Parts: sequence; C-alpha cells; structure tokens
Amino acid sequence: MAGFDEATRVEAAGDGTYRAQLDPEWTVGGRPHGGYLLALVGRAVLAVTADHPQPLSASAVYASSPEVGPATVSVEVIRAGRLASQVRARLSQQGRVRVEALFVTGALEEAPEARFADAPPPAVAPIEECTRLPMEPMGPGFRIAMLDMVAQHIDPASFADARADMRGWLAFDDRTGAGEPDIWRRDTVSLLYAADAFPPPTLTLGSIGWVPTLELTAYLRSIPAPGPLRIRQRSRLVAGGLVDIVCEAWDSLDRVVVQATQLAAVRMPTA
Amino acid sequence: MAGFDEATRVEAAGDGTYRAQLDPEWTVGGRPHGGYLLALVGRAVLAVTADHPQPLSASAVYASSPEVGPATVSVEVIRAGRLASQVRARLSQQGRVRVEALFVTGALEEAPEARFADAPPPAVAPIEECTRLPMEPMGPGFRIAMLDMVAQHIDPASFADARADMRGWLAFDDRTGAGEPDIWRRDTVSLLYAADAFPPPTLTLGSIGWVPTLELTAYLRSIPAPGPLRIRQRSRLVAGGLVDIVCEAWDSLDRVVVQATQLAAVRMPTA
Repeated sequence: MAGFDEATRVEAAGDGTYRAQLDPEWTVGGRPHGGYLLALVGRAVLAVTADHPQPLSASAVYASSPEVGPATVSVEVIRAGRLASQVRARLSQQGRVRVEALFVTGALEEAPEARFADAPPPAVAPIEECTRLPMEPMGPGFRIAMLDMVAQHIDPASFADARADMRGWLAFDDRTGAGEPDIWRRDTVSLLYAADAFPPPTLTLGSIGWVPTLELTAYLRSIPAPGPLRIRQRSRLVAGGLVDIVCEAWDSLDRVVVQATQLAAVRMPTA
Repeated sequence: MAGFDEATRVEAAGDGTYRAQLDPEWTVGGRPHGGYLLALVGRAVLAVTADHPQPLSASAVYASSPEVGPATVSVEVIRAGRLASQVRARLSQQGRVRVEALFVTGALEEAPEARFADAPPPAVAPIEECTRLPMEPMGPGFRIAMLDMVAQHIDPASFADARADMRGWLAFDDRTGAGEPDIWRRDTVSLLYAADAFPPPTLTLGSIGWVPTLELTAYLRSIPAPGPLRIRQRSRLVAGGLVDIVCEAWDSLDRVVVQATQLAAVRMPTA
C-alpha cells in the first residue's frame, strides 16, 4: 500500500518527460482517481518550476480513464514569470492522452491577510458524529480502494436534506501509514487531491453510479493550518446529463484553502 | 468597428493552425479583452470538432497579454469522442504564447430538463434603473473600447453594498451594429465572452486598476432564450494579491446558461 508521496512520485526521464506508476490503491472501482491524477501531474509540473513551489491554479480535462500501472507525464513551461509560471502537462498511457492540464504555479503564502472574505465555512457536525465512508458506498462489488488511504467523514445531514450539498471532514488516514495529519500543510499537491476527494454530491439525489469528470479546476488560496480539512462539495445544476460540482475546503482555523469547480457527466434515475 | 463575428473570425492556414486579427475595439486599456480572446480561440476549436458544435467547457491560462493585430491559434484534438471532444488550443503572437486553453466540446441543448437546480437568479433592478457603464469607469485615460460594442447595465446596488457582488444585464449593443439582441443564442461562442465581460467585482471594494486574469474556466449549460443575459459576478476571497471571481449568467427565462470562475491578480488600497 503506497502512501500519497510514493503513489504520486515521478521520475525524470529527460526532455520534460516524467515516468510515473499509477497506484492500485488510489482508485475508484479499479480506476485511478481524478484528484489523485491531478496531484501526480502537479508533481511533475512543480519539478520544472523550482522558483514557484506551489500550484496556484490547476485545470484539467479528462480525455480517457487511465489504468493502474506505468504512465508518462510530459510538461512544457509556457512562461516562467516573476510572480507566477504557466505550465502545460499531459499524462499519457499506451500512446493515448488520458489527462491534459494547465497549471499556474507561484509561492503560496500561509494565511495571507484577507482583504475581503465572503466564504464562511458551513456548519459541519463534529467528526465523531459524521459517517466515515465505507469501502462500498455505491453498492457491493464497487470498491473504492482510496478510502483505505483517506478518511472521509460525511455529515449525515448531507444525505438527510438531499440537496446535492455534501459536507464533512477529510484527512489522510495515519492508521494505515498512508499519510500523516499534517500532509495538507507539508505537501500542497495533496490539496489538488482534496479538490476532488469527496463523493459526488448528486449521490444525495440518487444519481446512478460513476460521475466521470470532464473538466476540473482548482485554486489553492492558502497553506493550511494543521488538522483535517472541512469540505463542502455541492452542485448547482443537474441538466442535460451534466452536473457542476463546486468544492471548497477550509483549514482548522476556518481559512479558505481550496476553491474548485468541475463539470461531470451524471446519470439520474428515470423520472 | 468590427462586430463580434468579424472580430473573432479565424482563417484556416493548414495543420490545425488558424490566423486571426485581434481587434482594436474588443479591448480594455488598449489590450485585447480576456473573454474576447477565449471566444476567438473557441472559434478555432469549433472549426475542428464539427460533430460537437458548442463548447461545454473552456479553461484558459493567460501567459502574457497580446497586442492588437495578427495572431495565430493552433489547435490539437486530444480526443474525439461520441458525446464530447477534448481540444487543446494555443494563441501565439510574435513567437510567444499568449493564451493556452483546453476545451470540451459537445452538443449543447436548449433548455435541457433540470433534474436539480439550486442556482436562483439574483434580484437585479430593471434595465432602465441600472447604470450603463461609461467608457472610462476606471478614470480618464483608461479607455474600455469594448463598451462601445456591448451594453453593460450595472445594478447601482452593487456599488452601494460594496460586497464584491456585481449584478446587472449584458447585451450586445445593436445600435452600433456590433451585434444583435439574439447573438447569445445564435452563436454560443459569445457566451465565453460573457463569462468575463463584467467589470471585476473588486471595483466595489476600491481595488486599484487592472485585475489581470491568471486562469478562467467557463461551463456552458444551455442555449439561451432570446434577450439580454442577467449576470452576477462576485468574489469570495481577496488575499495574497489574488482574487477568485465567480460568474453566473441566466437567460431571460431565468435558466442558468453560464457558470464560470477565474483567478486574478488584484491590488487593493493600502490598509
């Protein structure tokens, strides 16, 4: 079982190309998880922008779902600026593009002074009153292996109110040796995983099965304080087989650390 | 004075390359506007995905501000799928990358049935009670030429409440011959412009000057009904010299048509 560091490790192969191993544990139904893939791609991006050690923004389109096993990430610095750099990255496998991404990297501050804030954290039940997601929330036979690696504590009210508004806490599970309580802080690439970690909020509406991401964009706003992240992931519109998912994460001092959005395909029960 | 169609026209030059002319009228302070650039890039993208005539998602990083004049857009189809295609696009000028973008294209429905919606349009004063933005809202000498081409009617309450929450109406100004009342509907690429058209909501907080976009992502959710768009553009956090801007647009039947987000640099007055 590979911890996050090991599972997202990339190895330089020259000419802006990096070799990676897509890990069997960071999967959903046997397929590498989208947030995990974005974090792994971010690892290769940060390898080429040493002056800018954090992602400020990461956007990805998911062209085809990769398999567990070897993959290649190729990166191209579009522009290396003073305050920020722009980088393009592509994760390929068996000659096919699986994920294509654009990053803006920079130097993220810890708790930069907020000149304006209108993003209060939602009320979330204390962690001990939340439901830690089991391995098979989508029914037997659909194994979400990554739930061995991270602890997702969902506020039961999220399901009770059935408003596509999922609230809870997210932490790496240090019992499994997969990570550490402080990983969000030590390794900001992990926040890219956090941007997509929670189950799709459409589950509370009865959506059926897999909700594959078409596009995911995450902004990192602060290096978090130690402790679990408070997560809110909600949808504003389910229509035409598509859903938007807005994810926000706050640290233990209630500061905004991640703002993300994605567009995904969704199947709803027949009306 | 070139209308939107003409100003975003691209001409095939072979090998996935398109020639464009960045128009002097679609500018802010003499520089081509970010939403206009995204629309122009979208024009080239749609030229190569004929089966998928609309953008479902568009994400761009702005590496360096281009100048008015000739530019090149190169596109690469990453994957042509059944329901959607993924396309990469790059706008270059004088050998430098100015905008790099990722698109998901598909067939957008008109008013797809909403299986869930939690995105009510905000109250906005009637158009005749709104303030049509003058040419120099940022002070004399800073000319926003595109305000000749489009009509931005801002609800005065947006400034009165100073909450980085800008509400109003957006229409192409048919008096100037720049467009037509129905353009949002006829030409969905125009919705990419709409995603970034309004002034930065930080203006209501007293932010200083230009608010350059680092990353912009827009999702199109429906082909709009005729009429002006209702726009809400708001920020959730201003910190560390950066601001997020969430833009939503509704059509005249109160249906969500655009959901967008951007990360931009911002200067605030000294505290």
